[in-house]
Amino acid sequence: MNQLNFDAEHAARAQLMSAIEGGNSTWSREVGAHGAIEVVAKLREGGYLQSSPAATRRILDADAATIFASIERLDARLVIPGDSEWPTQLDDLAAPPFALCIRGAGDLRTMALHSIAIVGARAASNYGMRIAGDIAAQLGERGWSIVSGAAYGIDAAAHRGAIASGAQTAAVLASGVDQMYPSGHEKLFTSILENGVLVSEVLPGTPPTRGRFLIRNRVIAALTRGTLIVEAALRSGSLRTAAEAALLNRPVLAFPGPISSPTSAGCHRLIIEHRAELVSDVEDVLVHIGPLQIESPAPEYPSKVRDSLSTDEKVILEMFPARSPITIEKLSYISDLPTNRILALLGLLATLGFVEREGAGWILTKKGKTA
Amino acid sequence: MNQLNFDAEHAARAQLMSAIEGGNSTWSREVGAHGAIEVVAKLREGGYLQSSPAATRRILDADAATIFASIERLDARLVIPGDSEWPTQLDDLAAPPFALCIRGAGDLRTMALHSIAIVGARAASNYGMRIAGDIAAQLGERGWSIVSGAAYGIDAAAHRGAIASGAQTAAVLASGVDQMYPSGHEKLFTSILENGVLVSEVLPGTPPTRGRFLIRNRVIAALTRGTLIVEAALRSGSLRTAAEAALLNRPVLAFPGPISSPTSAGCHRLIIEHRAELVSDVEDVLVHIGPLQIESPAPEYPSKVRDSLSTDEKVILEMFPARSPITIEKLSYISDLPTNRILALLGLLATLGFVEREGAGWILTKKGKTA
Repeated sequence: MNQLNFDAEHAARAQLMSAIEGGNSTWSREVGAHGAIEVVAKLREGGYLQSSPAATRRILDADAATIFASIERLDARLVIPGDSEWPTQLDDLAAPPFALCIRGAGDLRTMALHSIAIVGARAASNYGMRIAGDIAAQLGERGWSIVSGAAYGIDAAAHRGAIASGAQTAAVLASGVDQMYPSGHEKLFTSILENGVLVSEVLPGTPPTRGRFLIRNRVIAALTRGTLIVEAALRSGSLRTAAEAALLNRPVLAFPGPISSPTSAGCHRLIIEHRAELVSDVEDVLVHIGPLQIESPAPEYPSKVRDSLSTDEKVILEMFPARSPITIEKLSYISDLPTNRILALLGLLATLGFVEREGAGWILTKKGKTA
Repeated sequence: MNQLNFDAEHAARAQLMSAIEGGNSTWSREVGAHGAIEVVAKLREGGYLQSSPAATRRILDADAATIFASIERLDARLVIPGDSEWPTQLDDLAAPPFALCIRGAGDLRTMALHSIAIVGARAASNYGMRIAGDIAAQLGERGWSIVSGAAYGIDAAAHRGAIASGAQTAAVLASGVDQMYPSGHEKLFTSILENGVLVSEVLPGTPPTRGRFLIRNRVIAALTRGTLIVEAALRSGSLRTAAEAALLNRPVLAFPGPISSPTSAGCHRLIIEHRAELVSDVEDVLVHIGPLQIESPAPEYPSKVRDSLSTDEKVILEMFPARSPITIEKLSYISDLPTNRILALLGLLATLGFVEREGAGWILTKKGKTA
């Protein structure tokens, strides 16, 4: 088992995922409050009336080692709250995922901190495809990563625009990260794996269903600093993502289009009902999303960055001397964490602007001192 | 002199118009408070320091009979506050026109009560031309009249759409109503004269100037229940009309378009800055403008209709018996007004929903009884 933090809690969450679908706030609250180990133990004692005997049986019979083997075969990892790659923005959800299965070269946590969701119609127009690709590339050039759903149409154009600009991109799937759905996007999935991550709250082997597409949308909204709807018909699934973003107080933005275009009708409806702000270019988008600099987040989200640190990161940050540098070896020694883990944590803290290299060691930045 | 209400006040206003441009709130307030006769008399005594000797001379030398002859040759009329064709909405302006020169088959007052301004770019796109014509026709079919500025592009498409639908349309000009500007619109002007009116606050013979285009825009905004911008570049003159409508608390609406279209950029800017509401079809427009039924005006303008009656109309309305009908001849006899004038006044009162035909006479409606 190479899973960095693989432990009983990871195993218990994997067990729960084998029978409980995401998006259930009762289960999410229970797991969030007591941890999955305790929830599985209580299930074993028959402590949850809401779990059917069949579901309980599936959970208790699930073999975590087998699940982790399947994840490892994909070069993927199972990330849970407290892990360094866990995007703590997900904790804003009424029903956070038990865990995320993540596959690809990117670090989801780092990407999510400066990411924008770009979503829209599958049956997009040429106009929609062009502006989706353009805006993703322009945001990518400015250092933003793009989160979308890997669907045909706008989603694909957004991922491709991000990759073309050299930016990272994350595809949040309704299926397991081994399921290349839709199948016409095999090359796109390969490209995303090299330039970002595939993300899912269901285990490998799980096919997409309509229900999973719907609950997936909340993850897209929660991961990102805001959601941009490029084109949407009146009953488009991307309107659901807009609603989830609004629930989370994240900015919802929409591109206008010709009034005669059915694939802009959903965008226009959002703007008319003041559920989205009209934007017409990358500058308009950034007015609402705020600056890229993580050290000065948009006024609406002042406490996010410091609050979003995991326990390990906070511990490491607190070990820093106020004014002098410290080496990785010393941090490893006093924290009792391996040096490769310290390096990963420092990389993230540096991305967030709290620490920086100084000679052979690391030192707190001005921001790190006041954090 | 056939001018129905031609009298000393009309003459004095015509004199003032021969040297004072519209849009000057000092002069408008002075004329509104004391009447033009008194203002001209005070000018003669040198009572206004703000009037240059040359301007004062031009006013005092102006021959009202000559001016009225020129108006009559055009089959036009000079309408001033108190006249039955005066659109009292204009009194909402900081600087109402001294008078309007009106030419054409329509009755401006009646048209303006259920009118919408549709304006936009001269250098309009095919998309803009099509949607301007379509929305004007759809509003026309629902009984609305369309007010615009007779310019190339969106204005022309709006007038034409209205005419095609059988609706009335008013063109508010920056020049005298004898000046067919732009000259490429001669056929359009002929068509507007047959299906509505040309309107101007300057005398025949006056050419358009940049300044007159700007002050003209406030008249378009004030005449109408709301202003729709179909297409506008970032520095379009139609944004000025939008600003004037906003000053008057009239709804300002804008059509979106492709984000790549420079002729939609002004519309998008208005919506982004929340200075216009996005609309995408005729239903959206009417949500903001309110219902056509004049008897139940939009809540924002509850007192407009009864207040907007001219003195003559109020006098006639008050002559009606509470429950029984009255004939035109009897109204003419007791009001000392000619029967054709009574008929015109009754037509207007009927349009407003205060009276209706009953046998050979006319009777108060329920609304007329409570007015």
